[in-house]
Amino acid sequence: MVKSVVSENRPGSTVESFSIGVDLGGTNLRVAAYREQAGIVDSVLLPTRLSFGRDQVVQDMCDAIRTLTERNEGTLFGIGIGSPGPLELPEGILRNPPNLSGWDGFHLRAAIESELGRTVALESDANVAALAEWKLGAGLKYGIDNLCVLTLGTGVGNGLILNGAVWDGFNGMGGEAGHIIVKEKGAPCGCGGYGCLEQYASATAIVRMARERMPEAALGNAHEVAVLARNGNEQARHIFETVGESLAIALTALVNTLNLPLYLLGGGVCEAWDLFAPTMFQHLHTRSYVYRLTEPQVIAPGRLEAKKTYILPAELGSAAGLLGACLLGVEGSSRIESTKECSFVQG
Amino acid sequence: MVKSVVSENRPGSTVESFSIGVDLGGTNLRVAAYREQAGIVDSVLLPTRLSFGRDQVVQDMCDAIRTLTERNEGTLFGIGIGSPGPLELPEGILRNPPNLSGWDGFHLRAAIESELGRTVALESDANVAALAEWKLGAGLKYGIDNLCVLTLGTGVGNGLILNGAVWDGFNGMGGEAGHIIVKEKGAPCGCGGYGCLEQYASATAIVRMARERMPEAALGNAHEVAVLARNGNEQARHIFETVGESLAIALTALVNTLNLPLYLLGGGVCEAWDLFAPTMFQHLHTRSYVYRLTEPQVIAPGRLEAKKTYILPAELGSAAGLLGACLLGVEGSSRIESTKECSFVQG
Repeated sequence: MVKSVVSENRPGSTVESFSIGVDLGGTNLRVAAYREQAGIVDSVLLPTRLSFGRDQVVQDMCDAIRTLTERNEGTLFGIGIGSPGPLELPEGILRNPPNLSGWDGFHLRAAIESELGRTVALESDANVAALAEWKLGAGLKYGIDNLCVLTLGTGVGNGLILNGAVWDGFNGMGGEAGHIIVKEKGAPCGCGGYGCLEQYASATAIVRMARERMPEAALGNAHEVAVLARNGNEQARHIFETVGESLAIALTALVNTLNLPLYLLGGGVCEAWDLFAPTMFQHLHTRSYVYRLTEPQVIAPGRLEAKKTYILPAELGSAAGLLGACLLGVEGSSRIESTKECSFVQG
Repeated sequence: MVKSVVSENRPGSTVESFSIGVDLGGTNLRVAAYREQAGIVDSVLLPTRLSFGRDQVVQDMCDAIRTLTERNEGTLFGIGIGSPGPLELPEGILRNPPNLSGWDGFHLRAAIESELGRTVALESDANVAALAEWKLGAGLKYGIDNLCVLTLGTGVGNGLILNGAVWDGFNGMGGEAGHIIVKEKGAPCGCGGYGCLEQYASATAIVRMARERMPEAALGNAHEVAVLARNGNEQARHIFETVGESLAIALTALVNTLNLPLYLLGGGVCEAWDLFAPTMFQHLHTRSYVYRLTEPQVIAPGRLEAKKTYILPAELGSAAGLLGACLLGVEGSSRIESTKECSFVQG
């Protein structure tokens, strides 16, 4: 439910300025024009033509931005881009991004700015999704300025909002809770480590665990594993218990360290909330004393009770990334400046 | 090395105002008067008379504060208190504190303020230690406003400084990284969970592991285990490898999530730095890709290189808690207000 998408036509108002957001994915490139009063008013969907090289992808992105700029009235306020990470900020340099192979060391922000002849704001895709959940989703709904989003999709994305700002860390690599270690001798992870949350709570992990434990079932995706679990298959049910326990172990680290009022779980795996959440809450109650001391009475509230820790499904669904990029565009260059504030000695 | 302890006698200056800091421990009650130019100028050390009840301890503390106020010239600027946690803030209520049995639900701040007839600032002992490391220790030395302190003592304490402020979390229970789970089926912990960092990296844990693995050796403290390890005992060496690996797993969670430039390890266990650090850095390199991407060339630098992640011994030693309480007093009531800023809906 996107609250700001409700159009407010103010009689007699002049044409409002707009921002442009880009959701750069490994498969799709989504570009949208966004007005604060009306939400997304225009969009372009393209394939991400990775096989044509990164310059072509930047060219396609900038063409779509120009198209939207030309066909929408009013002033273009700013451009925001959500990209797969890891992303070094504020420079906007990609560092071994697993979903954009061949882009290591690419100065993405500089390439886009050079092509467009203007500044853009850049953040990791998980951080812009968190920005959207804060400003338009659960953060808005509950009036919360401190929250953590975990997106359980192909991988496990993570974004943090601390004191009303995206937490980038000192060089843009904060918010990688998908690589909290949940099994000290666990499965190898794409990050080079092993036993990461991503290996036990992503859609990819669910399929891997199903193939390991039920090779005869030939399961193709996480949804099929969930159907099997709902039909009473013990092995399949146990996989979602592993998802729940792994989420609890990672959330224990986050809850005990950050003590935020709200943690949101999004992404396709959350369709199986009924299958993993009971185990997750049971382990959180036992294993995180900060959670236990602040556990709410009502798990799915209409409003949040003060001094309680809530773990809830995210509100915005798959639109979060594109909406967040648009919001980043609204914030414009102010974001770029704020990422420089984190203090360090120049080397 | 406490930089501000160096006295700067300014000729002709009037008598400077001072703050009072209290380090409330389970065994000792340390109270000091502190001047910004001169550091700690006067102190009182008392036993914490827990067996006489909490009211007596508060009385003893307030008597010591009054003694220091009377025998030091100048205006008392503010009073800061570091207490064992968990501590609900801003109210200052203790929640099942393991080191102050019988104090559950005690309104510590209100009790002290009622006795003294003035406001005091209260934080957990680990948070005031982090405050001291930031303002007088490694934070000052390296010019860093974002850091994490882990204190490896009887338990594992933790304090976070984010953007130049103690991170309390929404109700004072942030900074409990000692209860990050490092072994998913690990040893039971005092927090009610199991497999927590505290069970593998505290002095208590080192003794427990030594007794489990070498019952015949009758080892009494962590120092004896370290001596045995340095003499080549394989079992003892392996215990410190477990310490190092466990620290790496917890630091992976912190580094990947927060992406801070500096993590400090303090407490008595750090005397065995040579025994656990090689394993810790080796696992961090393998298991935290954020660390790997930002790994410094020089492990013990004179100054920090920009964009690198440093894990270093803390600077202040056992004085950190008392110094931090004094600094909290300098900040005075401004701290109490700032802890209220974290937003939530009133329940």
